[in-house]
Amino acid sequence: MKSIVILGSTGSIGTSTLDIVKRFPSEFRVVGLTAGNNDEILEEQIHHFKPRAVAMSNESAAARLRERCSGLSVEILCGPRGLAHIASLPEAELVVSAIVGGAGLVPTLAAIRHKKHIALANKEPMVMAGKLMQEEAKRHGVRIFPVDSEHSAIFQSLEGHRITDVRRLILTASGGALWDVPKEQLQDVTPERALQHPNWKMGSKITIDSATLMNKGLEVVEARWLFDIPESRIDVLIHRESIIHSLVEYEDRSMISQLGLPDMRTPISYAMCYPDRLPLDLPSLDLTEVGKLTFCKPDHDRFPCLGLGYESLRIGGTMPAAMNAANEIAVEAFLQGGIRFTDISGIIHSTMQAHAPQPVESVDVALEADRWAREKADSLVHALAR
Amino acid sequence: MKSIVILGSTGSIGTSTLDIVKRFPSEFRVVGLTAGNNDEILEEQIHHFKPRAVAMSNESAAARLRERCSGLSVEILCGPRGLAHIASLPEAELVVSAIVGGAGLVPTLAAIRHKKHIALANKEPMVMAGKLMQEEAKRHGVRIFPVDSEHSAIFQSLEGHRITDVRRLILTASGGALWDVPKEQLQDVTPERALQHPNWKMGSKITIDSATLMNKGLEVVEARWLFDIPESRIDVLIHRESIIHSLVEYEDRSMISQLGLPDMRTPISYAMCYPDRLPLDLPSLDLTEVGKLTFCKPDHDRFPCLGLGYESLRIGGTMPAAMNAANEIAVEAFLQGGIRFTDISGIIHSTMQAHAPQPVESVDVALEADRWAREKADSLVHALAR
Repeated sequence: MKSIVILGSTGSIGTSTLDIVKRFPSEFRVVGLTAGNNDEILEEQIHHFKPRAVAMSNESAAARLRERCSGLSVEILCGPRGLAHIASLPEAELVVSAIVGGAGLVPTLAAIRHKKHIALANKEPMVMAGKLMQEEAKRHGVRIFPVDSEHSAIFQSLEGHRITDVRRLILTASGGALWDVPKEQLQDVTPERALQHPNWKMGSKITIDSATLMNKGLEVVEARWLFDIPESRIDVLIHRESIIHSLVEYEDRSMISQLGLPDMRTPISYAMCYPDRLPLDLPSLDLTEVGKLTFCKPDHDRFPCLGLGYESLRIGGTMPAAMNAANEIAVEAFLQGGIRFTDISGIIHSTMQAHAPQPVESVDVALEADRWAREKADSLVHALAR
Repeated sequence: MKSIVILGSTGSIGTSTLDIVKRFPSEFRVVGLTAGNNDEILEEQIHHFKPRAVAMSNESAAARLRERCSGLSVEILCGPRGLAHIASLPEAELVVSAIVGGAGLVPTLAAIRHKKHIALANKEPMVMAGKLMQEEAKRHGVRIFPVDSEHSAIFQSLEGHRITDVRRLILTASGGALWDVPKEQLQDVTPERALQHPNWKMGSKITIDSATLMNKGLEVVEARWLFDIPESRIDVLIHRESIIHSLVEYEDRSMISQLGLPDMRTPISYAMCYPDRLPLDLPSLDLTEVGKLTFCKPDHDRFPCLGLGYESLRIGGTMPAAMNAANEIAVEAFLQGGIRFTDISGIIHSTMQAHAPQPVESVDVALEADRWAREKADSLVHALAR
């Protein structure tokens, strides 16, 4: 039985993780959970999974939760220190890092420093401080298992083969909700329209990132650090059906890939149980039902954010962190109706142009770049909204 | 540097193997070669690769070769004992088994018994005596590496994962040269037409086997023994483009597959160098150029030979050996113009119905079933030809 902590337990990945725990109660014990501000769902989870301790980033949500759970023997913490405390619970063996955005960096690093293996669904920590994260993981003898379907696919396609034989990593991309929208119509796209992802049901931030292809840009950065492969050997392939989750090409031109129906429970469970596989009672992929798989090149003209991901890596240092922060601000502004869909890439690009990158020698450097870029992007949003 | 023997060096797999040796002269030393009756090509190969000894199954071809090579220091043997001798050369570490048809069984077993690892391109030994082959390999500490693109794909998709987690093996099939031919026209198909394989350039026997889908039936039998998975968990999927070479589904519904352009040098080199991969300078698979991959179910009505493969396994014992022998006779008769394309499955089926299967307790039992079935199939061919 494996003792786990879930950072971000009320989100899409968090609830899927708990669904797996529910299906395999003899495999996992939930010792800690954290959430942002959804005290209602967290209360339900506390009743069902009986964690020893939980934390909420939002203080008033934590206060509400304390009232709801007054009769229960659960420790309820709050704020960044509370999150870091849960991430470091001594009995936890694995921490599922599923907080949305850059907020996951500090607690995930805390977990690594307390020798917890990581199931990493939250890509932003790798984007902001990938090199540092990997160095810390190495220092503390910790393994980081990717949960993102693309990185899980690459991880699975590398198992049993040698990283020195790798020629290219090929990340597949669905193209998101707006792949078929002509360029001139993109500026009028509403958040509702951009949230209609063809294959995956995910949180709103990542669904917008899919529509802009920024998600793939962030994934290129994540892959670069997760697998220690330079960005010049990472390709992106548009594959609308999201069946081939990604591929690895080896020196002998053999490609290995991982496929499946789009269901996050498969990569989550692999990251939770590696090297075991759980007999998940999910529908099986029937390729004759799918009929055909299609492939085409990314369109950098309509979707410039993917190129920004590559550029941030070429520039290096804090540039990916700045890009990521600007993106979070821009996406939020778009979802709130403050800016147009096509403004998102412009805000990120302008923020990157204004950013003076520094080597990421500590988490504080990354956090400072994050803070600076949020402020910058925010001012750009306000200038546009005026 | 690895010392290798190639059984069947003048055929399609044999010459591709030597092409790899030519590209990586510091990796391999050719110590022995065998061929059927093509003394001309074998002479060229002797000049280039300087093996210590060779053998030809055909005695008069061997005599011609002796004349051609009178000035060279190469030992030239002939007949079954000659082949078995080359397969057992003491300095050989790996034997590439690439003889066409059941004739490969005895020399391949000889190699196993002399503790040579096997790169197995010749599927018939596994079909005729798969259980025995695996038992012998285990006893002598020998590994059998598949060369067939489908089995190599499965082998590569199993590496790093656990056979106990496997749910299904899925062999892909191009459908062969006649996939689009309506049922009523199949009886009039000429050998020339049936030899037009859409993706792979191979020998004529295996190309006809592709057109009847018997090749896939034989591959199901081969997979059953190579990977120790019952036939009820082996599926076949028609995939016209021959890009996904096969797939493995695991218990968590994750599938791993191997892909590549159809070029046998990739699976051959993997079997030769496992676990190393050679930096083959071959064209890379560009899925955006391929554009789409299609999938459909096999058509057992037009192509009954695939079903016969499954049936032979369900019946067991010598039945796969009898099926294989009947197929060899029927294909040869079709290529010679003696029978119709649609007669091939009928001859195999009738031979199987007449066969009284025995447990394959020794190679002699398999060889006797092979002999009996050839005679039976031959008489059926003659009855039709009359």
